[in-house]
Amino acid sequence: MNEIEKLIQIMGRLPGLGPRSARRAVLHLMKKREALLQPLIGALGDVSANVRTCGTCGNLDATDPCAICRDAGRDGAMLCVVADVGDLWALERIGTYKGRYHVLGGVLSALDGIGPEQLSIAPLLRRVEDGSVREVILALGATVDGQTTAHYLADRLQPFNLAISRLAHGVPVGGELDYLDDGTLIQAMKARQKF
Amino acid sequence: MNEIEKLIQIMGRLPGLGPRSARRAVLHLMKKREALLQPLIGALGDVSANVRTCGTCGNLDATDPCAICRDAGRDGAMLCVVADVGDLWALERIGTYKGRYHVLGGVLSALDGIGPEQLSIAPLLRRVEDGSVREVILALGATVDGQTTAHYLADRLQPFNLAISRLAHGVPVGGELDYLDDGTLIQAMKARQKF
Repeated sequence: MNEIEKLIQIMGRLPGLGPRSARRAVLHLMKKREALLQPLIGALGDVSANVRTCGTCGNLDATDPCAICRDAGRDGAMLCVVADVGDLWALERIGTYKGRYHVLGGVLSALDGIGPEQLSIAPLLRRVEDGSVREVILALGATVDGQTTAHYLADRLQPFNLAISRLAHGVPVGGELDYLDDGTLIQAMKARQKF
Repeated sequence: MNEIEKLIQIMGRLPGLGPRSARRAVLHLMKKREALLQPLIGALGDVSANVRTCGTCGNLDATDPCAICRDAGRDGAMLCVVADVGDLWALERIGTYKGRYHVLGGVLSALDGIGPEQLSIAPLLRRVEDGSVREVILALGATVDGQTTAHYLADRLQPFNLAISRLAHGVPVGGELDYLDDGTLIQAMKARQKF
């Protein structure tokens, strides 16, 4: 296998790229050596050398503790529990949450053999046991595994006398009722709010 | 902009990856540092250091002339003209063509301001002028620009007394007549063959 085929094979293992799109991407890189290939090699090397997992919350950053954990302007009494770093980024993009995070590294899944020991649950319990955290927001997906994980965590957090909340379910902004699944509609009706 | 955001921004410039899928790809790379991130950095570095454009045909390879141009088992009297290296790879995958190639580096396009000088046309004419090439196959796309380029090249190759051919147009294998565009059907009918 030559250099290009090897690169295509590795690129094809990225999510969202199959063999065909990996080939296109590699050809594009070869055409834009200075403008794209060299910057990509540099950026990958930087990330590989400098980015680490925050030992406190599990975020990815160039420092440990990460910028969010070090930010004194953030409310350390609120902890938002997310499955993955991508979810943390999604919440940071909306920019309204000013507490801290805890990244589980996934959700419980009997099918994939992921139990509580595979997730960052013991570190979460250690973070709340000194009493400095007053509210934990379980920001997990509205999937079966996500909700199972939320219930499991709510049980484990029970003894610490915290406010435990979850994200609201309901009609997505811009969503048409006609196209919504029944489960969402039922939740939206149950949690209806005063106009 | 931190290291990860910079990498996401660069990855998002690859064809087929938008900002969202670039984020997913980068998170995946961070999870698989040993299995994917390091091999990717290595493979990109190898390609950047070793792969060059063949000075004869325009193919990409670790050697110049490339493996196809050096292969004495290939028929030097046949030259297949393609727009891009990706087209060359597509023809190599079918494995039935045993001649050599010439990569134009694109097609003529008034809209994109691509004239004959921007393409590898002068080198193509130099390759045929010594009389060693007997047939030129214009394997260009069945688009307006591809066909314009094919006509232009046929004109320029006229004086050299060569056989000039193009790929057959017709019903794609596995294709249903009902779903074919009229242009293809007209071509297929015109070029009908004895059963």
